[in-house]
Amino acid sequence: MLLTDIEIARAAKKRPIAEIGAKLGIPEAALIPYGRDKAKVDRSFIAGLDDRAEGRLILVTAVSPTPAGEGKTTTTVGLGDALARIGKRTAICIREASLGPNFGMKGGAAGGGLSQIVPMEEMNLHFTGDFHAITAAHNLLAAMIDNHIHWGNALDLDPRRITWRRVMDMNDRALRDIVVGLGGPANGYARETGFDITVASEVMAILCLARDLDDLQDRLGRIVVGYRRDKTAVTCRDLKADGAMTVLLREALQPNLVQTLENTPAFVHGGPFANIAHGCNSVMATGTALKLADYVVTEAGFGADLGAEKFFDIKCRKAGLKPAAAVIVATVRALKMHGGVARADLAREDVAALRVGCANLGRHIENVRGFGVPVVVAINHFAADTPAEIAALQAYVAGQGAEAILCDHWARGGAGAEDLARRVVALAEAGARFAPLYPDDLPLWDKIETIARRIYHAGEVAADPAVRAQLAAFEAAGHGPLPVCMAKTQYSFSTDPALRGAPSGHVVPVREVRLAAGAGFVVAICGEIMTMPGLPRVPAAESIGLDQAGNVVGLF
Amino acid sequence: MLLTDIEIARAAKKRPIAEIGAKLGIPEAALIPYGRDKAKVDRSFIAGLDDRAEGRLILVTAVSPTPAGEGKTTTTVGLGDALARIGKRTAICIREASLGPNFGMKGGAAGGGLSQIVPMEEMNLHFTGDFHAITAAHNLLAAMIDNHIHWGNALDLDPRRITWRRVMDMNDRALRDIVVGLGGPANGYARETGFDITVASEVMAILCLARDLDDLQDRLGRIVVGYRRDKTAVTCRDLKADGAMTVLLREALQPNLVQTLENTPAFVHGGPFANIAHGCNSVMATGTALKLADYVVTEAGFGADLGAEKFFDIKCRKAGLKPAAAVIVATVRALKMHGGVARADLAREDVAALRVGCANLGRHIENVRGFGVPVVVAINHFAADTPAEIAALQAYVAGQGAEAILCDHWARGGAGAEDLARRVVALAEAGARFAPLYPDDLPLWDKIETIARRIYHAGEVAADPAVRAQLAAFEAAGHGPLPVCMAKTQYSFSTDPALRGAPSGHVVPVREVRLAAGAGFVVAICGEIMTMPGLPRVPAAESIGLDQAGNVVGLF
Repeated sequence: MLLTDIEIARAAKKRPIAEIGAKLGIPEAALIPYGRDKAKVDRSFIAGLDDRAEGRLILVTAVSPTPAGEGKTTTTVGLGDALARIGKRTAICIREASLGPNFGMKGGAAGGGLSQIVPMEEMNLHFTGDFHAITAAHNLLAAMIDNHIHWGNALDLDPRRITWRRVMDMNDRALRDIVVGLGGPANGYARETGFDITVASEVMAILCLARDLDDLQDRLGRIVVGYRRDKTAVTCRDLKADGAMTVLLREALQPNLVQTLENTPAFVHGGPFANIAHGCNSVMATGTALKLADYVVTEAGFGADLGAEKFFDIKCRKAGLKPAAAVIVATVRALKMHGGVARADLAREDVAALRVGCANLGRHIENVRGFGVPVVVAINHFAADTPAEIAALQAYVAGQGAEAILCDHWARGGAGAEDLARRVVALAEAGARFAPLYPDDLPLWDKIETIARRIYHAGEVAADPAVRAQLAAFEAAGHGPLPVCMAKTQYSFSTDPALRGAPSGHVVPVREVRLAAGAGFVVAICGEIMTMPGLPRVPAAESIGLDQAGNVVGLF
Repeated sequence: MLLTDIEIARAAKKRPIAEIGAKLGIPEAALIPYGRDKAKVDRSFIAGLDDRAEGRLILVTAVSPTPAGEGKTTTTVGLGDALARIGKRTAICIREASLGPNFGMKGGAAGGGLSQIVPMEEMNLHFTGDFHAITAAHNLLAAMIDNHIHWGNALDLDPRRITWRRVMDMNDRALRDIVVGLGGPANGYARETGFDITVASEVMAILCLARDLDDLQDRLGRIVVGYRRDKTAVTCRDLKADGAMTVLLREALQPNLVQTLENTPAFVHGGPFANIAHGCNSVMATGTALKLADYVVTEAGFGADLGAEKFFDIKCRKAGLKPAAAVIVATVRALKMHGGVARADLAREDVAALRVGCANLGRHIENVRGFGVPVVVAINHFAADTPAEIAALQAYVAGQGAEAILCDHWARGGAGAEDLARRVVALAEAGARFAPLYPDDLPLWDKIETIARRIYHAGEVAADPAVRAQLAAFEAAGHGPLPVCMAKTQYSFSTDPALRGAPSGHVVPVREVRLAAGAGFVVAICGEIMTMPGLPRVPAAESIGLDQAGNVVGLF
């Protein structure tokens, strides 16, 4: 009988968290326990690691996602377990899950099958409270903005040009567009605003890019909350909110340590959106892991065109990280969909369609290599994959000068990814020559064009004059050296989610650009980006509850 | 040199939380650690305590509060430490602090001087995340309400009659009155609503009155979220939100264990408003403490007219608690203010004014005795109190047939309250005959009148016909047996906050009545009650931050 992910997770033979920390040489005194199976790593211990050499950083990314599923996190976990099995001191780094969306659609595991990170329930609920702290810090700033205006608006903030909204970790469409400050003089000035979901907060992106508490406060201070009538920016520091926000985030900045089913240490920390933000776990977690482990396996959001590009151009650039190798996760199923097969027909062997769909994988291989990072493809094995399909996929990848390794970690845990692990070690030991895609001093528009042409293979990048004027204004205000963060559909290299495979020559329309001065990037929005989800007709919440034993049911 | 509360708290010689638990016989395996100095007590351990005998419950209450300060929590802590010193197995139970208001006015300690509960910073910030969990559970229900209407409103909820608002643990006046659901069909239906601060949430009151997870879910299910056009109620259970809310509150329901400066165990759990709710810590905490300790010292919000009355008539009635004795905290300063002395003149001896002000204390003594609970008065000593003033106060209390004991726990810790502790033990061992003020089957209006006349000494209780009709509707819907929760100014026995001392014959106007069907009481609102505070012109947040050592500054 096949067990579900949650059944496997509940049966996990977890080791006490102090034992997991000890695998990385973290003394028990440097672990701040949250229950017996979760801990934060104390900042003073982390600060003492500065002089240590760093391990090798392995990025797990994927083909463009399809409804067929790729198993990127599952592969991240399986590879981590496999590296530990072949004797490498290993740590895994992934993002935290957002609480709210679990009550809409069913929540998920971190990984799947025998390649999971636990405790699964807590990781899908409050975990160590990081997202709640981010919500509080974000909303404190919002309260201070309206309060400032209420008491006389000495900073002359234009109430029509306030860009800072509020956040909640909940799917609540009714809060997307609201009017606040109604009810008379005691309640302030009425104005339009709204709520985003917490993972869309710039505070989330900042927490994930901050190197330490000082850097965190500096970044928070740089947040632009809105503009005066003369279009000059008003910042969080102008409102003197940065110190109090840092206090609210003091504990949240410390990385969370948990474990895989095979007791490999895993840092699960931070969770920025992968569209309007950069979509990777915190620099604090990755940086700490690199000081403690020989191999650090991490992942980036969505496919490699979005996730890996942002990982390289935003996170690695800003944090000085040098990835040693990249794993691109592909499945026979997903590539068949990229080759035109409908979801309902995936069980049928279709080598021809697979070969067509391989173009999507090929483009990602080429792109990742363009950053100077060596690539191996992990074929995340599904039961219905046929030998002919697997052989065709491996032949295609070999034709690209790379290797595609069949992995079975979902069914077998780390043992199913040992071949992949050995190949990753070989690539990483051979050395990489990582470089970001574009230099800091390229104009903002040219950065967008570079990504669209080189990564997406677009023929043209289009934008209204207002968008170009906005970029010019950002540059005039000194934000020109920032990297750009592309917000585009994850389902295609183009901006049309239905266009699978490897389209070329399409037009990328940049509808809007936004400044995230604290996080340190300019967001280019190319398509509809939803920053506050809604609940479906029958929300998962309706069937979530506790059973007689106090276990959560209906969440997974 | 006098140390501030925060300096004293930081210098505390805290013992590991397992050692604190051991003082109450809690095995380490039943403690869920949150750092090294905070833990939750596991629900399965608590469930196993049912057959144990219970210790004695001591309520600390106070005269009507004045700006001079009474030190009720300080006395609760000092008395707890003193009981431990004289050899009693003792636990303290108090409320958790709300995070948001700390960023408006400076936050405070739990207690003061040498009678404090620690860790102070965490207790004023995220602590163990209970309030964040309550916020999430409350707002999940709100999202499910608007989502239900968006998808067709099968329950026929009248959007004009939705009583469930949203909550945030932040002082944010702009959210008091808002319009949600703007922006077109994808965002639902526009309607007026607003946010309250989290401590005002009915979910908070429910968490504090629930006996276990089943009772928690039952109560959540009974929440009335609004009405149909035919005025019938729609509940949380109708929306199927009760299970998911229980999941969000599963950890939060477990009491938090911390310690005093003298390492006496203290449960700090739950924090409902003392006006629109009942204002005491959780039944879970008090019930658990009674199973583990010989003496449990707890406190109620505001003065005895509000806090003690609700403690007796709501919490004790519903949880089957039998208080063994009550301590009424008074200060010479506060009674002089009740006797007409201005705050600026408090340093000057004024025995005559003190004698006049004693009427306030006398009324509270008489009221508490009316519940069949023996009383001792604790004089919380201030440096400026003169021997003549103290003697006059003691003589007054002796004239009421009680004893007023001078306590010096602020300056000396538990050693300063040993006389009080011995008197409390003598009273408690002599036995109490506790009974609530009114029977369950009294009509709701008569319950309000009984409290107003017997406790407040009002001459008349006034209400519009609409209020009486609303009470009749609650009774028709089966809510007649609920106790009433009075929301009135805490500064006076009357509804005029300026009327100090012991006024009689005043009119108590009941402006509005609200149903809290989940918490299990009907709120009678007698005056302006603010459920979402605002920030002041210069919020404390502006000066809150971290120093070089990572300590919080400006919060206290």
